[in-house]
Amino acid sequence: MAVERISRLSQPMQAAGLDALVLNPGPSMVYLTGLHFHLSERPYVMIVCPGKEPVLILPELELIKAKACLIPFKLFAYGDNPATWGTAFKQACAEVSLDHKKVGVEPNQLRVMELRYLESAASHARFESASAILASLRMAKDPAELAAMGKAVDVAQRGLKATLPSIRAGVTEREAAAELTLQLLRAGCDSSLPFAPIVAGGPNSANPHAVPTDRPLAEGDLLVIDWGASVDGYFSDLTRTFGIGKVEPELATIAQVVLAANTAGRAAGHPGLAAGQVDRAAREVITRAGYGVYFTHRVGHGLGMEGHEDPYMFGENEMPLAVGMTYTVEPGIYLPGRGGVRIEDDVYVTADGSASFSNYPRELAIL
Amino acid sequence: MAVERISRLSQPMQAAGLDALVLNPGPSMVYLTGLHFHLSERPYVMIVCPGKEPVLILPELELIKAKACLIPFKLFAYGDNPATWGTAFKQACAEVSLDHKKVGVEPNQLRVMELRYLESAASHARFESASAILASLRMAKDPAELAAMGKAVDVAQRGLKATLPSIRAGVTEREAAAELTLQLLRAGCDSSLPFAPIVAGGPNSANPHAVPTDRPLAEGDLLVIDWGASVDGYFSDLTRTFGIGKVEPELATIAQVVLAANTAGRAAGHPGLAAGQVDRAAREVITRAGYGVYFTHRVGHGLGMEGHEDPYMFGENEMPLAVGMTYTVEPGIYLPGRGGVRIEDDVYVTADGSASFSNYPRELAIL
Repeated sequence: MAVERISRLSQPMQAAGLDALVLNPGPSMVYLTGLHFHLSERPYVMIVCPGKEPVLILPELELIKAKACLIPFKLFAYGDNPATWGTAFKQACAEVSLDHKKVGVEPNQLRVMELRYLESAASHARFESASAILASLRMAKDPAELAAMGKAVDVAQRGLKATLPSIRAGVTEREAAAELTLQLLRAGCDSSLPFAPIVAGGPNSANPHAVPTDRPLAEGDLLVIDWGASVDGYFSDLTRTFGIGKVEPELATIAQVVLAANTAGRAAGHPGLAAGQVDRAAREVITRAGYGVYFTHRVGHGLGMEGHEDPYMFGENEMPLAVGMTYTVEPGIYLPGRGGVRIEDDVYVTADGSASFSNYPRELAIL
Repeated sequence: MAVERISRLSQPMQAAGLDALVLNPGPSMVYLTGLHFHLSERPYVMIVCPGKEPVLILPELELIKAKACLIPFKLFAYGDNPATWGTAFKQACAEVSLDHKKVGVEPNQLRVMELRYLESAASHARFESASAILASLRMAKDPAELAAMGKAVDVAQRGLKATLPSIRAGVTEREAAAELTLQLLRAGCDSSLPFAPIVAGGPNSANPHAVPTDRPLAEGDLLVIDWGASVDGYFSDLTRTFGIGKVEPELATIAQVVLAANTAGRAAGHPGLAAGQVDRAAREVITRAGYGVYFTHRVGHGLGMEGHEDPYMFGENEMPLAVGMTYTVEPGIYLPGRGGVRIEDDVYVTADGSASFSNYPRELAIL
């Protein structure tokens, strides 16, 4: 499988005039090779030059893992003294004649550290973004990938269901987040969660990127829970909003508006539609209700082996959707100091429209 | 606290001839500002120029968090359309006159993405590593930091103790790792573990960077568990090795040798000693026992807000230890195809020597 994926790089690389592609540890390396390495202070770099054996620069203590990989890498291993790492880069770059080449990199993943080693070893190479090429391979998920994402949604939904009975006024956001983490692992989540859950009550729910605090939930709070699971390395990312007891009328109103926006956003996608139209479909509902200024972020982002990936769902994005693309639809309204509502689902593009992996009830439930 | 930490940058920056320091989200930003942001596809960059107001470039939806920070940042916020992000960088870099300056960066943390935005906005600036400056601030922990690390070790040790009763022949590595994760969270670990635990049995224990598999533990296996916890953002990182039932004599022998090496490594550190001497003290024990070739990695690494940080404990490292520095001591012997032993403790340098945060029994216990 991974060997086949690497071979799919040649055509788009040629079209972009790239002679080589460089990757460090992360989702694209896993996607192409199955190799999981931690991003650490040690540089790990693979170099793919179509028509040549791929090379891999890595610490000696990872040789076992690299040799178990199906891709026939030529390996350049180094020891623990950083003074010797540059030599491994020089040898590897010479092996594939990287100097004077046009080299694709992932700017969101490659660090200045790896870049400087490569620049030292191939001082006339030009390094350019290959993000669009990698996105073109990874965006449209195959059936096995879609199945893993469906499982990740199922695990997330079961984890939330098991958590809710312990959430009530007096419980802190941190306590609720810890319980949710436990229940996600119990439900079958991979040992690393895709992200630490957001549990944000009362005024904190008005912050889209809140971090759980020691504030206890209180009667009348809105409670935003933004959580996900990982299954076989594929992610889910959901949000539901609850009321702790009865909430004031305007907060209940914005919950209805956000639900209508979520429904419109989920319905919008189909092959050929510009990604930005999904944002506009949801945003229009909120703007028409008079809350446009309180919907302060794009409606969603691609989802898969990364929590955020292409296609990004912002209004100006003209990228056309295609079958198998997967993204979140997560409109929100945030009233500063009072509370916020967000409802987030994970959607995939079908042959004639789009469908949601997630089906957990979206109405404002009172806990 | 954080304001005071930023002011401590001026002197070493001046000594290094740096006009500015650039940071993206990560431990150094948390250390200096208390600001926790996710590393994502959106660039977040803070720029510190001694004598000027620091600036922060970030997405609009993070303004609430940035305004709650005690550091008086001048904020440059952007929306969801990436086409507009370059403008925020241009304005921020102009504000601090970054062009033509010598700018410190963290090569292990800053990505090519942020670097390219900075290069576009300040095309004559030179970007150089400021890693040594940040390490000089962060390496020697203050009493509050040491206390947090002590708690992280305590949580890890209690989490392991609660896990062991469920580990026996027939249990898979993945099952044991999930149970350990649960128990770490129950014991009080922050909602994000510092790293997913390594649980490696039998031949897998001979791979220092093993990932838990579906292999069931079997009688006669060595079992390496490498795990840690996080408390208030500070990490622990421990390893213990167990026997599943009786293990063959040579495996018991290497467990004794590694214990002696761990003891020597823990005892070695004191202010002024070259970090590399800790590696040599432990390695000598293993080499003298005839297993030097099977100890395939450095003896340890610094530990704190990162799983791996300065000081790195490899033989050639001449960096002198100082009071408050914290590092792991984790010698190992790995017999390919048969099994491995590693014993890892977390150590801090005292006024007249070094001491271990961790005290969990180190002998090969039979489960």
